[in-house]
Amino acid sequence: MTYCIGVLLNDGMIFASDSRTHAGVDNIAKFCKMTVFERAGDRVIVLLSSGNLAGTQAVIGLLKQRAEAGARKPHLFTARTMFDVTGLVSDAMRDIDRRDGAYLEQSDGGFNASFIVGGQVKGEPVRLFRIYAEGNFIEAGHDTSFLQTGETKYGKPIIDRVITPDTCLTEAAKCVLVSFDSTMRSNLSVGMPIDLICYERDSLMVRMRRRFEQGDPYFATLSREWSEGTRAVFRQLPALQW
Amino acid sequence: MTYCIGVLLNDGMIFASDSRTHAGVDNIAKFCKMTVFERAGDRVIVLLSSGNLAGTQAVIGLLKQRAEAGARKPHLFTARTMFDVTGLVSDAMRDIDRRDGAYLEQSDGGFNASFIVGGQVKGEPVRLFRIYAEGNFIEAGHDTSFLQTGETKYGKPIIDRVITPDTCLTEAAKCVLVSFDSTMRSNLSVGMPIDLICYERDSLMVRMRRRFEQGDPYFATLSREWSEGTRAVFRQLPALQW
Repeated sequence: MTYCIGVLLNDGMIFASDSRTHAGVDNIAKFCKMTVFERAGDRVIVLLSSGNLAGTQAVIGLLKQRAEAGARKPHLFTARTMFDVTGLVSDAMRDIDRRDGAYLEQSDGGFNASFIVGGQVKGEPVRLFRIYAEGNFIEAGHDTSFLQTGETKYGKPIIDRVITPDTCLTEAAKCVLVSFDSTMRSNLSVGMPIDLICYERDSLMVRMRRRFEQGDPYFATLSREWSEGTRAVFRQLPALQW
Repeated sequence: MTYCIGVLLNDGMIFASDSRTHAGVDNIAKFCKMTVFERAGDRVIVLLSSGNLAGTQAVIGLLKQRAEAGARKPHLFTARTMFDVTGLVSDAMRDIDRRDGAYLEQSDGGFNASFIVGGQVKGEPVRLFRIYAEGNFIEAGHDTSFLQTGETKYGKPIIDRVITPDTCLTEAAKCVLVSFDSTMRSNLSVGMPIDLICYERDSLMVRMRRRFEQGDPYFATLSREWSEGTRAVFRQLPALQW
């Protein structure tokens, strides 16, 4: 499994992903699921990947090669809008599906990768998308300001309670980390390190990026204080009278 | 969907179920998913049902008819242990599957019902089981003292944090209601009323049963205080320093 989340705020965006991959519980590994395409002053594009690792790596690899190959065909550094960026990621997914899909169908049920894509291209506001495995996609907006993939349920209640478009980056980053804490407690297939980016609107560069390894002191404090605090709140709730 | 939970404690047991059933989002109804077989001083058996409503009603109907028909074949009021009770529920499920399964396979994928079964037969401790759709079952124990069916994820973190076998009935009942609150916030297919039973060990009768309808004042207070309390805890968590 995986847990990835992108949050769209008035002040900017938060991106976070776990790093656990597994082919059965007897084959667990760590891979970073966050990829950044950045050209300072022009664009910041963040991709969070979930699904089959060979599939997501192939898509990222193709996107990187196309961007490096340069100007002939449109690529992530020439796309005019985040909508076009997302379309290019979707195209790459379908290219890989065309190459591998039929072979995968024979065993594990076909090509299976999905992405959260967000960021900012100069001249546009910050934008956030989720691309499904089929390559179609949705965009976050004012009513739904976050998009998740993978094991979304355990960590959703705290996000639902706290985050609105007005939430500041600091609070939203804290909330996303609490959401990861809840998810990792309940689902072993989501695991550290956690990669986190806080992107400030219109900065057009990544200034705040951090990786939380197992045992990270800030994350441990957050986890402990949240756990103790919610238990204390629970104890103070009124008892049911029969 | 459905949310049902049974909790096994040193002091007794908690059972709770929501009441929403639906055949598509355009066809929502209320049905009680909690059935009690009680003979005061001898046994209390509680069934919580999830899955296809026709299936669960057929199983319950069969179990009731068999119990009423009386002594010839073993039934829920003659079973010697909760293990045997659970076996009889499983038998009834398989009887219904034999009758309906092949017809259902033609459209919606076969017989699909599962149960949480718990309670106490005189001379035995309290016991709690979960029967899968196939009729096989597991029993809760000291290490895992609660069993859930249906939409289990949103409401699990609070149960994980609070409930141990030593938790008293009052605290456990409160915790289960908070768990329902979290679940109903995030999944519309779980809905009120909530049926709740607190069973005191060795009482061999149901003394505490309550239904929480939409707008129930206690439930509303619990929900509000929990929401405000967790938000306050969240606000006090330390901010991440970059």
